Amino acid sequence: MSSIFDASLLAPHIPKTLPDNLKIRPLEKNDFSKGYLELLGQLTSVGNVDQEKFENQFEAMRTSVPCYHIVVIEDINTNKVVGSASLVLEMKFIHEAGSRGRVEDVVVNSEMRRQKLGAILLETLVSLGKSLGVYKLSLECVPELLPFYSKFGFQNDCNFMTQRF
Amino acid sequence: MSSIFDASLLAPHIPKTLPDNLKIRPLEKNDFSKGYLELLGQLTSVGNVDQEKFENQFEAMRTSVPCYHIVVIEDINTNKVVGSASLVLEMKFIHEAGSRGRVEDVVVNSEMRRQKLGAILLETLVSLGKSLGVYKLSLECVPELLPFYSKFGFQNDCNFMTQRF
Repeated sequence: MSSIFDASLLAPHIPKTLPDNLKIRPLEKNDFSKGYLELLGQLTSVGNVDQEKFENQFEAMRTSVPCYHIVVIEDINTNKVVGSASLVLEMKFIHEAGSRGRVEDVVVNSEMRRQKLGAILLETLVSLGKSLGVYKLSLECVPELLPFYSKFGFQNDCNFMTQRF
Repeated sequence: MSSIFDASLLAPHIPKTLPDNLKIRPLEKNDFSKGYLELLGQLTSVGNVDQEKFENQFEAMRTSVPCYHIVVIEDINTNKVVGSASLVLEMKFIHEAGSRGRVEDVVVNSEMRRQKLGAILLETLVSLGKSLGVYKLSLECVPELLPFYSKFGFQNDCNFMTQRF
């Protein structure tokens, strides 16, 4: 299977406001050649991930339970991935052995800004997360984007800590 | 295999300060009968999770890649689980297809407080996370515990948002 998760899971959650030249779908294995990693490079450091490493990680994510719900927007005129966001689920014993969801790695190509693609990705993932039954969704972002994410039901929560290695 | 992850992975990270009557180890399937869910109930709502549901979730977590590193402290005098904390890894494409780690569901039996069991769990998980090569660790906690977690290298980060369903 070339999709990282079942496309039929995604279909009911795609907003109708997507421009005609764009397609929203699960990440596919051949997105390596459609600029997916270059797009992620606009978000943070990707480093040296060659096609083999990409495909190995893709397979590990695809076969993970629960799988990684990585959604991309492709520009069908250029065959390039121009936006992406991920919904990652964590299994729990708490909350009736429920699932916790996280929105991760939201990025829109800098040349495609002001077309509300970020909003489309967020609407899609929040709706998908609800349908998958997560009891909680969270995300991290730069301070400037706190107002943007609040439009999709998120509230700022300062009881969070990080460390980097 | 009765452990949720390989106990030999954990051994190098266990602090030597653990009292003699206590044992720190990966969660095991028969911890259902050693009070694991009752302990989690001191943290938050667990709800109706019977033995079958527990064992199904345990197997899903154990066979997940990367697996769920759920660590427990057992009191060998009473055969009860008296503390637990989890290190959950998320696979990424960013950071050289690296891993992000999260410390989740830290709880110590209210009758066992002031024995530094929380500190032992945190030292263990931070050390384990580093050894597994995570580029970042994070956690959420109640405001009163921010100073406690700062002892283990965590810094408060307010660029975090949540929503509940």
